[in-house]
Amino acid sequence: MEELITVLGEIKALFNRSLGELSIDCVVFGFHDDQLKVLLLRAKGTDAWSLPGGWIFKTEHLEDAAYRILKERTGLDSIFLQQFHTFGANNRYNGKEIMARLGLPTEHNFFPERAVSIGYYALVEYSLVEPKMDYMTEECRWWDVNEIPELLFDHNEIAARALKALRKQFDNEALGFNLLPEKFTLIELQRLYETILGLEKNKLDRRNFQKKILSYGFLERLEERKTGGAHKAPYLYRFDPEKYATYQHENEV
Amino acid sequence: MEELITVLGEIKALFNRSLGELSIDCVVFGFHDDQLKVLLLRAKGTDAWSLPGGWIFKTEHLEDAAYRILKERTGLDSIFLQQFHTFGANNRYNGKEIMARLGLPTEHNFFPERAVSIGYYALVEYSLVEPKMDYMTEECRWWDVNEIPELLFDHNEIAARALKALRKQFDNEALGFNLLPEKFTLIELQRLYETILGLEKNKLDRRNFQKKILSYGFLERLEERKTGGAHKAPYLYRFDPEKYATYQHENEV
Repeated sequence: MEELITVLGEIKALFNRSLGELSIDCVVFGFHDDQLKVLLLRAKGTDAWSLPGGWIFKTEHLEDAAYRILKERTGLDSIFLQQFHTFGANNRYNGKEIMARLGLPTEHNFFPERAVSIGYYALVEYSLVEPKMDYMTEECRWWDVNEIPELLFDHNEIAARALKALRKQFDNEALGFNLLPEKFTLIELQRLYETILGLEKNKLDRRNFQKKILSYGFLERLEERKTGGAHKAPYLYRFDPEKYATYQHENEV
Repeated sequence: MEELITVLGEIKALFNRSLGELSIDCVVFGFHDDQLKVLLLRAKGTDAWSLPGGWIFKTEHLEDAAYRILKERTGLDSIFLQQFHTFGANNRYNGKEIMARLGLPTEHNFFPERAVSIGYYALVEYSLVEPKMDYMTEECRWWDVNEIPELLFDHNEIAARALKALRKQFDNEALGFNLLPEKFTLIELQRLYETILGLEKNKLDRRNFQKKILSYGFLERLEERKTGGAHKAPYLYRFDPEKYATYQHENEV
């Protein structure tokens, strides 16, 4: 009971500092073992999963809030955080239902009658993540994108739309280098693309893929080759962050 | 003075019905005479131009609000309205400065301390627009995208980003058929693309362009040909809205 009062007090204090009608939800993607994963949180003492998210302080820039929330909830200084859509259905959630689902007293419903949520997605290197708990969270772990459970609020819709946006951006642009080790082969890069795009192995034409990816101009071929494979050792590449930044700047929307 | 009291009263009533921290701004693009135009409003008795925009009613779905605002301000039932970015800098405007610029008494500043604005862009057929005035607006007219004046708030940034998003979407997807007459030649379609993308005439390779655009599968070649030109009469095409809807659904983000 004392714990509950502390939780409600912290939430109230947070609300008083924040814009009341707006929230941020983050869809954090990680790549591991040829699988695309998404980071989900489970609320204390419940089986209710949701996306990491939070509120925007009254004087805080929207982008700053997104980075802060991602860091608070996941310990990550994200390399890549992309706003993709704002969710504003007038029936996104029922505050009292969510309170009940969280095992909290419904008469203390702290959710505003309505909140519009701004969706961001992040791409992170799986191994760097140190999920952080807070006073509401008991578990924070990776789920395969194909096995996302039923989430609170409209978070299943937000996650689905983030995946679509990510795939579209991968298809049209250069992305994803922060999901790979520092040095990688073009085959490894192709495998990443195929996984993100939900394609079978070797579905992308190798020659076209390599031509396209090299045409962006920010991949640097190293003198080193990758050893240990059955075939002729392929060259290793790394990406040039400066040229990448220039490219991103020229192509950002 | 009486008029001013009426205006302030109407604004106050509107605010009471609306979410206080959120607004919508619309960048309305029209195509005419190989020029890309954008619709701007001038506030009564001033030389202050801005994008058409408005507030979201407390119980209104975000998308519904965007369509309503576009209709109220421009008389348009938009065929294509696309959310492209949410603008949340904490210094987007200074309410008192805007009041002064609008010739309104700064002690009655009705702007919230801060509002986050959700940006939509629309594509419309130039000839169908019947700009509508409201109690704040004296003039509503088309400006060439290359000649946009200094706008109120952060509307220059919003307009610039909408143009980037539009160009990107044109480059990656099929769009723009609602900017053309019902029947058109592929050359006319190419000219539209070149204008939107800010390219010189015939900069796109004709053969590649036609191959790409036909591959989407929703253009129907008619038996008719366009007559009157110096060259062999080209075929007329029209687009199939059903197949277009299917395509959009499969490719939407």
